[in-house]
Amino acid sequence: MDETKILLSEKDMPTQWYNIQADLPFQIPPPLHPGTGQPIGPADLAPLFPMELIKQEVTTERWIDIPEEVQDVYKLWRPSPLYRARRWEKALDTPAKIYYKWEGVSPPGSHKPNTAVPQAYYNKQEGTKRIATETGAGQWGSALSFACNLFDIECKVYMVRISYDQKPYRRILMETWGGKCVPSPSPDTQAGRDMLAKDPDSPGSLGLAISEAVEDAVSRDDTHYALGSVLNHVMLHQTVIGQETKKQLEMAGDYPDILIGCVGGGSNFAGFFLPFVKDKLDGKPTRIICVEPQACPTLSRAPYAYDFGDVAGLTPLLKMYTLGHGFIPPPIHAGGLRYHGMAPIICALYNHKLLEAVALHQNEVFEAAISFARAEGFVVAPETAHAVKTTMDEALKCKESGEAKVIVFNNSGHGHFDLASYERYLSGGLKDYSYPEEKIQEALESLPKVSS
Amino acid sequence: MDETKILLSEKDMPTQWYNIQADLPFQIPPPLHPGTGQPIGPADLAPLFPMELIKQEVTTERWIDIPEEVQDVYKLWRPSPLYRARRWEKALDTPAKIYYKWEGVSPPGSHKPNTAVPQAYYNKQEGTKRIATETGAGQWGSALSFACNLFDIECKVYMVRISYDQKPYRRILMETWGGKCVPSPSPDTQAGRDMLAKDPDSPGSLGLAISEAVEDAVSRDDTHYALGSVLNHVMLHQTVIGQETKKQLEMAGDYPDILIGCVGGGSNFAGFFLPFVKDKLDGKPTRIICVEPQACPTLSRAPYAYDFGDVAGLTPLLKMYTLGHGFIPPPIHAGGLRYHGMAPIICALYNHKLLEAVALHQNEVFEAAISFARAEGFVVAPETAHAVKTTMDEALKCKESGEAKVIVFNNSGHGHFDLASYERYLSGGLKDYSYPEEKIQEALESLPKVSS
Repeated sequence: MDETKILLSEKDMPTQWYNIQADLPFQIPPPLHPGTGQPIGPADLAPLFPMELIKQEVTTERWIDIPEEVQDVYKLWRPSPLYRARRWEKALDTPAKIYYKWEGVSPPGSHKPNTAVPQAYYNKQEGTKRIATETGAGQWGSALSFACNLFDIECKVYMVRISYDQKPYRRILMETWGGKCVPSPSPDTQAGRDMLAKDPDSPGSLGLAISEAVEDAVSRDDTHYALGSVLNHVMLHQTVIGQETKKQLEMAGDYPDILIGCVGGGSNFAGFFLPFVKDKLDGKPTRIICVEPQACPTLSRAPYAYDFGDVAGLTPLLKMYTLGHGFIPPPIHAGGLRYHGMAPIICALYNHKLLEAVALHQNEVFEAAISFARAEGFVVAPETAHAVKTTMDEALKCKESGEAKVIVFNNSGHGHFDLASYERYLSGGLKDYSYPEEKIQEALESLPKVSS
Repeated sequence: MDETKILLSEKDMPTQWYNIQADLPFQIPPPLHPGTGQPIGPADLAPLFPMELIKQEVTTERWIDIPEEVQDVYKLWRPSPLYRARRWEKALDTPAKIYYKWEGVSPPGSHKPNTAVPQAYYNKQEGTKRIATETGAGQWGSALSFACNLFDIECKVYMVRISYDQKPYRRILMETWGGKCVPSPSPDTQAGRDMLAKDPDSPGSLGLAISEAVEDAVSRDDTHYALGSVLNHVMLHQTVIGQETKKQLEMAGDYPDILIGCVGGGSNFAGFFLPFVKDKLDGKPTRIICVEPQACPTLSRAPYAYDFGDVAGLTPLLKMYTLGHGFIPPPIHAGGLRYHGMAPIICALYNHKLLEAVALHQNEVFEAAISFARAEGFVVAPETAHAVKTTMDEALKCKESGEAKVIVFNNSGHGHFDLASYERYLSGGLKDYSYPEEKIQEALESLPKVSS
């Protein structure tokens, strides 16, 4: 058997982030101020973010240097391995060549520290003492706790209630790194208290947890906010994944026919595929498939409109495919995919037909994850399992057609803290949720007026 | 900052296991038949193990070829990285150079699949349909489930009750790979039923779980037994760790002054240090420190005598430092270190003063693990945390003496499924247990007569 892992050495680790905005033939619609309807400026964001990140949010420079201190932390797990899934190919009896980029090797176990570390670093540089954030399944919250600890910054995490209850180990992980984690809705903010008054048993949502973290940050002078997805600077930081993947595929002598990733806010997949988009604009026929849950089918079924990033309407308006900022998704186990919107960069690319979207039910997703785990060994996160299922479907299509396509998916994180979800699946207790058509109409009606 | 990880490519992965028995100036005392007091022969072991493993148990060949099918599976995670713990060195303000070999990158998350895979492979070659085994904290049980699944063998795991209750995720992991796991003592065997009759709330022990698994295996024609530690062939398979470490240290231009590892049955540490023992016999002054719990201080305080490997007295007699085969250790969180005996290879080397031993309390051990996690990111298993604490102590001694010693420890597995233990520590709820002197006397009295 040939090579299983394609490895880069530390000296081949990317030293710059790649900014897609330099290479697009169209502009990403800017964030708007909800009051004026005008594009927001740096001053509007200054209470939330350090100036360096605000600059990264809007720059059109193609390459941004990765600070040495950030590179030094990256080296704890980067460059991450690219695997050829030889055992799974054999199990699926497919002529396709399946590769996966394995981000589960980071200490927090996912791609999230790729951006948590620079965000903590830039905050430290500008004197921030404390950072507030939200987290869905806990991958982002644990990554930020890990990063804040390394730069000696206090970290407060509002964790979506349903995941807080389902995934206690991710909370303990945050505490092990010195972070503080509370379930959202929490009594610590007005947004949280309002929701608890309305529904004391609310499972919470990413949109609501964002409201709480933003409110926390703007109400304290020593505190900034950090977002683990959606924004341009987050996508930027994640491009280390795609840059490495591209090099590793070159070493293997392959170029992808299909790139696959799961999307919640969109950061793991954007970081993975963005370095390939220029080639696509130049004529490469690579298909890029975003996989999301049927329970939260943002790209597949929602309108493209300006909407708030959070439930309470505290954020600027972002041009997104959106199910409406008031939407509380059903309690599926892929907590990281329970977001009403999507990164504006991904939405713009999708709107320009550079990307495809697929929506899946959670039972079929876990079935695929088990198939993968029994062939390759690794147990992936429920979010990542969405990418696994679509990869499997595409590989099985190759079996029918006899084509030896090169399929590459981003294995964005392990499922070690999600095993209760696997148990639920294995015991037949998982429920599938669809998103009824009338909800789409409701979403349209609830969008803020500026979107028209 | 210089290199953080020292990486080998797949083509540099060891292709042979190293057998210490070829290089020792003394013999490892052989296992004895409990009835006759005579060394046991292959026929005695045939109901339990495939013949190839029985041969490996006694061979004095220096190098044993690793079958290609086993190498192919190893490549899912091997060669594993050797880390230079630069951040931890800085946090400890020590001139010592600290390295750790990171075995947590395997799908089951520890060193255990290094032997689970060849054991499943040789069983498959000889037609075994089903394997029964025991597991402490669940690392071995999950590794064997992983390996059996790859070779299409049914797997039944008797998991020590205290860990079964404390670490439910490891059971789910076994089930994800298709294994079947029951708490030990279980009603499925006579040994289990006897213990349940005596103490329905028994926390169990590795020794008892071994009795159950051995009884299961000998009572069924289609079933073999597999042991995750103690035996010579297990130590042999684990030498891939030390062989890689030696190469990686050469690449870094260093040779260890001190090697450190935790010992329960002894396999992770033996696999790590055995490839360095020949150098020590030839005059290298490397210190080799075995770290065990105060709650189960086998090497530190027990006598060196022939004893059974299991509670019920079903196994051959092994020459070991032993707390007595009836000893049920207190319910510490490092379930993998709760074993009354120790690998005969380690015991013989210890008896010849080639090794040192240290015994630690669990609170100091978790304190060190938190120090490590906050510097290096990785959250280690409670067993491994014992090695972390001794490494920290030696590094702090270097701080006092100003010596830049090279300290290398085996980071044998991650603690993702042990976070409830971290939570217990962080909330101040962990109890320390000592082993009173009168217990040592009891142990001496309960040893089988042949030991005299």
